[in-house]
Amino acid sequence: MLGDVAVIGLGQFGTQLAVSLAESGVPVLAIDSRMERVESLRASVARVLCLDATDEEALSAARIGDVGVAVCAIGDDVQASILTVALLHQFGVSRVIARAVSELHARILRMVGASEVINPARDIALRLASRLLQPGLVDRVPIAPGYALNEIEAPAWTAGRTLLDLDVRKQFRLSILAVKRVEGGVEKVIANPGGDTAIAQSDILVTLGDDESIRRFLAGR
Amino acid sequence: MLGDVAVIGLGQFGTQLAVSLAESGVPVLAIDSRMERVESLRASVARVLCLDATDEEALSAARIGDVGVAVCAIGDDVQASILTVALLHQFGVSRVIARAVSELHARILRMVGASEVINPARDIALRLASRLLQPGLVDRVPIAPGYALNEIEAPAWTAGRTLLDLDVRKQFRLSILAVKRVEGGVEKVIANPGGDTAIAQSDILVTLGDDESIRRFLAGR
Repeated sequence: MLGDVAVIGLGQFGTQLAVSLAESGVPVLAIDSRMERVESLRASVARVLCLDATDEEALSAARIGDVGVAVCAIGDDVQASILTVALLHQFGVSRVIARAVSELHARILRMVGASEVINPARDIALRLASRLLQPGLVDRVPIAPGYALNEIEAPAWTAGRTLLDLDVRKQFRLSILAVKRVEGGVEKVIANPGGDTAIAQSDILVTLGDDESIRRFLAGR
Repeated sequence: MLGDVAVIGLGQFGTQLAVSLAESGVPVLAIDSRMERVESLRASVARVLCLDATDEEALSAARIGDVGVAVCAIGDDVQASILTVALLHQFGVSRVIARAVSELHARILRMVGASEVINPARDIALRLASRLLQPGLVDRVPIAPGYALNEIEAPAWTAGRTLLDLDVRKQFRLSILAVKRVEGGVEKVIANPGGDTAIAQSDILVTLGDDESIRRFLAGR
């Protein structure tokens, strides 16, 4: 489906990525310069290599150019991350996904050949910040500027009322995509809830709408 | 709105969180044991302290019990993270959000008093793994087991057809929540697209549905 994937840099992020892909049947090549990190993955992934990914000859000997996708997950050494991405590009890896730790780092990674750049710490920090800023917000996934998927605690004023009764789509320009509730200790999800769905006190609502609409809904207008 | 927030551990994640909250007007107390990290935030947040958060007396002198929310963002020292969370709980901080690096770490953090646990490296690694496993998938945000918000590249077979024509809701049990496209170099988002919206070749579709439905839609059935 996507050929071999090389994961370079086996910290928390790289290790989790390598294991998840391997569990789904992808042949993963895991690379790190620290032997103990490489060893800990030996049983989980197809191939492990202990080498310095900034060493051109070592990468060449590993035939890195043959992989379909390379993920540079190095997070603690910006210089090593940039050199590695440049080499991956030079060896002809067509899809190079690189982890950045700052905006400047991201720009440089793109300049030296990264086809995609991700910044896990920033993404999750921004989501947590949104959550802390808006009481009742459980999670927020931005979709477009000012427009997001929000998981919220059902506002107290909605308890016992049905979706038809609340008429959120018209009154608040919000869509309720799912209702999550715990029943008998088990989490239950009502996907695409109908108008006759009644909201219970401790429900979590998965909503879609603009930021102003969600604020109005949480406040009961 | 949420009172003071203490952010302890100023790596990438903690720093980004502290800055984002401060930019939104929250009085942030930023704490780290390394002076250079603390200094770099002095201009951005309300209060900085250089102290070892596993030191009970130091935390007490900082009157940590007065903050509304404490986020333990320590990522590289599991022992320090556990001790810090236990102390925050002991000092009566009512909402303690802690960063974990593994499932075991997460369990222990909850046992010693964390009200919420997050694992940024894992969350983003799982999202990237989903993306790599499913060609055409740009991003995936799980909402419930087997049910997710997916950003996908518009499949080639849909180009030029309208949403009404495609009838994705009935044919594929999918909702198209938004269409993102670049027009004249500017990203444009059509939120809640109507039936007359025609899909263009390089559109990104924000969809909601179960995993089987999304696979069928990407494959054109």
